[in-house]
Amino acid sequence: MRNICIDLGGTNIKAGIIENDQLLYSCSAPSMSDQSFLKVVLVLEELIDQLLEKTKTQIDSIGGIGLCMPGIVDVDNNRVLAINAKHEEAIQFDFNGWANTTYQLPIVMENDARTALVGEWQQGEGRGTDDIVMMTLGTGIGGAAMINGKLLHGKHYQAGCLGGHFTVDINGSQCNCGNIGCVESQSASWRLPSLIEETPGGKELLKQESTIDFKRLFDLTREGNQVAKNVVENIMKVWSAGIVNMIHAYDPDRVIVSGGIMNSKDIILPFMQEWVDKYAWTANHRVEVKASIDTENIALWGINYLVNEKINQQVNDSV
Amino acid sequence: MRNICIDLGGTNIKAGIIENDQLLYSCSAPSMSDQSFLKVVLVLEELIDQLLEKTKTQIDSIGGIGLCMPGIVDVDNNRVLAINAKHEEAIQFDFNGWANTTYQLPIVMENDARTALVGEWQQGEGRGTDDIVMMTLGTGIGGAAMINGKLLHGKHYQAGCLGGHFTVDINGSQCNCGNIGCVESQSASWRLPSLIEETPGGKELLKQESTIDFKRLFDLTREGNQVAKNVVENIMKVWSAGIVNMIHAYDPDRVIVSGGIMNSKDIILPFMQEWVDKYAWTANHRVEVKASIDTENIALWGINYLVNEKINQQVNDSV
Repeated sequence: MRNICIDLGGTNIKAGIIENDQLLYSCSAPSMSDQSFLKVVLVLEELIDQLLEKTKTQIDSIGGIGLCMPGIVDVDNNRVLAINAKHEEAIQFDFNGWANTTYQLPIVMENDARTALVGEWQQGEGRGTDDIVMMTLGTGIGGAAMINGKLLHGKHYQAGCLGGHFTVDINGSQCNCGNIGCVESQSASWRLPSLIEETPGGKELLKQESTIDFKRLFDLTREGNQVAKNVVENIMKVWSAGIVNMIHAYDPDRVIVSGGIMNSKDIILPFMQEWVDKYAWTANHRVEVKASIDTENIALWGINYLVNEKINQQVNDSV
Repeated sequence: MRNICIDLGGTNIKAGIIENDQLLYSCSAPSMSDQSFLKVVLVLEELIDQLLEKTKTQIDSIGGIGLCMPGIVDVDNNRVLAINAKHEEAIQFDFNGWANTTYQLPIVMENDARTALVGEWQQGEGRGTDDIVMMTLGTGIGGAAMINGKLLHGKHYQAGCLGGHFTVDINGSQCNCGNIGCVESQSASWRLPSLIEETPGGKELLKQESTIDFKRLFDLTREGNQVAKNVVENIMKVWSAGIVNMIHAYDPDRVIVSGGIMNSKDIILPFMQEWVDKYAWTANHRVEVKASIDTENIALWGINYLVNEKINQQVNDSV
């Protein structure tokens, strides 16, 4: 059975058609998050047309549509309950109605960090265990948790997703989520200028560098710049404390860390693993820290798995 | 069906016989945690004899034995995997063999914070919702989490129990769990002297008071002592940040806080509720903070529920 899989990000929309774990074709478009959501839906429809056409697929041979996106997703009713800034109108959108009316197909929706976790579990660094925590390091910091092969959702579909908003520094800064001293507010890229400024020698560093981002910071660290090294270490401590909190919360075998920042995994991963080995409370086991496999398609694999799971479940329920 | 329910604490062992949610009789004994665990088991047997005798119950009319205790409990195999300091020999003890050989009965085991949560859910402040987080404030700080009416266990039976060991102050003290800046190491009674000393005016307060515990601190706060008030507020912040982390981890409707310290719930609860209202990230709902109902028997109710659940499940499995 072929599924249409869509990863609706804040910057790009990626769409793919998957059959028996083979990605037959994929395409993408800007997500136009400054436009009305109805326009975004038109883009989705164009991408779907393209998938069907390029793979010569009739719509009636499609099993279902899978759609993942940021925000809090009610996976039982396919509604977006909350989403930060981008695609806010998605909260009002009737995804079930759209998939049913336009394509006569069922739709499966999920938060994008959760589908990335499922993708890693099926095709990536999560293979071999059913107890996984994911931490996504990007503009914001997100996450997901799987226990015994089941994604954790919680009553209001928030469980597992808010690891970036665990307080790790009670004397820290206000986060844009409203909480204080979150992993995110103590380490995310949007805090970078002030985090550098607060480090001794940081003001001078900011003057030397016209623009500074994580990539440049890690490069400077490799070149032996001590101020950059101190900034990076403070940030890696925050990430690692966040990971220990996720381990203490969800009791996994493995933690997978994703995000473009993991291009510097040569520095980041050993630091995180050492911190976890030293500080995580694990009675009789060791938790491994891994970097996400390097592919843009991981969330597509994840949502494809969830579509198949739902279709199989409905078949079983009707037997 | 009558069940034998035992709460094996670090200080006392409480035992009760429960039928249809009626506690028919209960008794207790010191837990002798400095003695060999085989001696502790003899005490358990004496308590069970007493329960049977006083309620004129034949052993063959008992459904099962429920036993809760601190530590990491493998609830699938009824083994204690780890336990702090007290009753360490329980790790080697064969509870299934004991219950089967001595009483020809099944045994159900669980961590004591989890059974307290189940007790609150069935008989206490957890009634009316199936999504609950528990925080136990005592010598140490523990917890438990229930999602959709199911206790969260995790792969290694640690999930939900380690809320006291979430890092909330990355610049804080080493905890006796090995981690740094835990809720526990920043607020537990064993840290009280140093927490007072670190507060401006604290050294003088320690000189004035021959012994100082949480009760005295809250009494001083009520009397208007500003130093005590500052110490108490710093500690309540740590507890509250821990609660927000538990909310962000498990997405409950309600948080229940237990421990003798909640005698001062007049001060503690409003502080926690205000903190949660202000800082917890909840899309479309409000999380309530409640104090545990004031009874020593809550864990007995909880373990009784779990024994009945297991027996019913076995009946269903065999149909």
